[in-house]
Amino acid sequence: MSQRDMKATDMQNRIDAITHAINPHRLWDSIMEMAKYGATANGGVNRLALTETDNNVRLILLEWINRPNYQFFVDAIGNLFIRRDGACPSSAPVMTGSHLDTQPSGGKFDGIYGVLAGLEVFRTLDDLEMVTSSPLELAVWANEEGCRFVPGCMGSACFAKPEDLMHWLAITDSENISVGQAVACFHRTMAGISHRPLGIPVQAYVEAHIEQGPILENTAATIGIVSGIQGCRDFQVIITGMEAHAGTTPASSRHDAMKTAVQLLHDLYTDEALASDECRFTIGAFQVYPNSSSVVPGRVVFNIDLRHPLQSSLTVLGNKIIELCDKHSHTGRCRIQAKELRWRRPIELGKNIPDLIQNAADRLTLPSRVLPSGASHDAVNLYQCCPTGMIFVPCEGGISHNEKENAAFGDLHAGAQVLAEVLYRLAENSRESML
Amino acid sequence: MSQRDMKATDMQNRIDAITHAINPHRLWDSIMEMAKYGATANGGVNRLALTETDNNVRLILLEWINRPNYQFFVDAIGNLFIRRDGACPSSAPVMTGSHLDTQPSGGKFDGIYGVLAGLEVFRTLDDLEMVTSSPLELAVWANEEGCRFVPGCMGSACFAKPEDLMHWLAITDSENISVGQAVACFHRTMAGISHRPLGIPVQAYVEAHIEQGPILENTAATIGIVSGIQGCRDFQVIITGMEAHAGTTPASSRHDAMKTAVQLLHDLYTDEALASDECRFTIGAFQVYPNSSSVVPGRVVFNIDLRHPLQSSLTVLGNKIIELCDKHSHTGRCRIQAKELRWRRPIELGKNIPDLIQNAADRLTLPSRVLPSGASHDAVNLYQCCPTGMIFVPCEGGISHNEKENAAFGDLHAGAQVLAEVLYRLAENSRESML
Repeated sequence: MSQRDMKATDMQNRIDAITHAINPHRLWDSIMEMAKYGATANGGVNRLALTETDNNVRLILLEWINRPNYQFFVDAIGNLFIRRDGACPSSAPVMTGSHLDTQPSGGKFDGIYGVLAGLEVFRTLDDLEMVTSSPLELAVWANEEGCRFVPGCMGSACFAKPEDLMHWLAITDSENISVGQAVACFHRTMAGISHRPLGIPVQAYVEAHIEQGPILENTAATIGIVSGIQGCRDFQVIITGMEAHAGTTPASSRHDAMKTAVQLLHDLYTDEALASDECRFTIGAFQVYPNSSSVVPGRVVFNIDLRHPLQSSLTVLGNKIIELCDKHSHTGRCRIQAKELRWRRPIELGKNIPDLIQNAADRLTLPSRVLPSGASHDAVNLYQCCPTGMIFVPCEGGISHNEKENAAFGDLHAGAQVLAEVLYRLAENSRESML
Repeated sequence: MSQRDMKATDMQNRIDAITHAINPHRLWDSIMEMAKYGATANGGVNRLALTETDNNVRLILLEWINRPNYQFFVDAIGNLFIRRDGACPSSAPVMTGSHLDTQPSGGKFDGIYGVLAGLEVFRTLDDLEMVTSSPLELAVWANEEGCRFVPGCMGSACFAKPEDLMHWLAITDSENISVGQAVACFHRTMAGISHRPLGIPVQAYVEAHIEQGPILENTAATIGIVSGIQGCRDFQVIITGMEAHAGTTPASSRHDAMKTAVQLLHDLYTDEALASDECRFTIGAFQVYPNSSSVVPGRVVFNIDLRHPLQSSLTVLGNKIIELCDKHSHTGRCRIQAKELRWRRPIELGKNIPDLIQNAADRLTLPSRVLPSGASHDAVNLYQCCPTGMIFVPCEGGISHNEKENAAFGDLHAGAQVLAEVLYRLAENSRESML
């Protein structure tokens, strides 16, 4: 047996030991424990970004892993990092993670699974007393969901492009609290935790996540190897009319922001390209002012979430939205402003990490398939920094962003095993050639 | 001179003394003082029904008039009554009043003017040390605006139909606080004030109010003699779909409550009869759940405010709304429930009080005109109990339910003078024949 073959066998043995030692009960129990914080009456979770509840669960996470071989860091946008020491401390870390914030009526698995699968890998390595060559890091990204503060994936975006920090900190929620104020509050919760600059070098990033769509379930695959993530454009539309008394103001003298909104939205919803199954066009956030049944609305503010796998279609469709807003602004009795909040190109994740995920799934004899991600993830931003991959596991009925969100014990276990193998191989990469 | 003529001259002299003594500066200052409670940055007032602010201003009103010839009462729906003793305490009171609650971005005059014009009449009678035959009462009706708790004019409706009390008390606001809980809180603020049954006998009711429309201003009239109030039907529409992830769920598998709402509303807004200038059709309150930009809405709840001067049109148009909801519920992917919250027939106020208002305006040489009310008022409900009338004064540009709401010092003065004469004549009615 050559030295190379011996090394390979040794590596194989260590990986077998790790994947075998992954404890699915500990993983499941951690997910269920986390779900208590912000639990809703219908079995979901309401844990908006950078709220007290969100801050507190991140503190709880630190308590769970408080051992001497770990260091904790926060950064200026409110990300949290749990660093597991490596034999070569100067190596850039291999990173995994996701987010702990949820939608207002979110589920128990979206985001949380990626964080706690990473935690389970770390705990397993601790159980086996194994030290990786490169350090490992578990990232908890701030404001992935983008409901309290629009847009989402803010923490990872700022990590990838630290020069945008000031822009993000100035964004406010519906109660006029800024990201900056909310992050300051997070830092107070994290008193005593070291601060670290944004955008430190990262060797590789691997994120585990529930699919949030029906493809894996429909094709009986346990592991999804994510090939890329569709692009998106987010708009905020502000329609300004004039408040008036609902009983005394005739239709001809109204400047009814709600009526204008319906005319515009009717044109958008009946557009064939926007309604095609390749495209995702959503009006999810919609606010009427002053929102009283006997007052003609003077202002309507809503968000448009547009996604498409092709950059060319994203360009055409997004521009059409802007044109329709302009058209209705000129023909109607209200002023319409369409503000582009974000434009993210579709990305392809390449071969590097996806191949490692594929190999791990094959070795563990887990049925897998390659698929694109319909949802945005923090991985999109990390892809700007380093080789990046995503591991999907099925979720029941493809239902997510919903209190009914569910995932199978065995699938969550399998995903954590694949994550463990990929992270370990990457973290040993600096010591041994990839095998 | 006959005894009858002498009495008439004496009455005339007393009325001259009263209308002359009405103090427009005291009235104006009271309105400006009241506007400080719930004041908004843009010069308006936000004082939702039965909130702490609303409860507090009612307490302040009692402090302003705390003299030995007054008694104070609250009732089970949260109305407040300030009773000025009369020479014949067993006579049913002559009542005036309005409301102190406002829209979330309301003005300084809507409702408040009617209460403080009544207060100014009482203060003037006190200044002149005049005792009326019948007692006078100033009513502050609970929840006239109907924005926190739908529908409006709730306090006066319950006064007129005490048997509906349980129905009203069970209604909840958007934070699931019931009218019953809010009224209990009001009663705590009013600790020590006597409770009185709902629906006590009233001799007559006269309400002063800003017009909230442009007719008086456009015709250079100072006093509006209200002939009647248009009818209204209020609906709550609940659209139930299913929450889904905006990035992963294709249009064909969505049950998008927002899209269904827009389809339904587009049909309603483009209906010619609903858009006619005789009709008032308003969607003022509209709520999307969970209201996050990256979640396909699973539920939309909105209110329809429909008004028309003709009962026949109200029937036809309201029924059309229900039919359209049914149609879209059957053809679309979401369930639509249309719940009728209120149906109030149009009313005619008859001749009795309107003629007294006309005579007072003429005697004071104030330009006046007869007009219907586009807005609903507590007078609608009091009309079920006793002869009722309303005095309108102009408001700038006809703008109301708006922070820009404004009214002229002189017009407010004139309205209070007319109110004083009408109230005094009515309250002397039991001692002397009407002159």
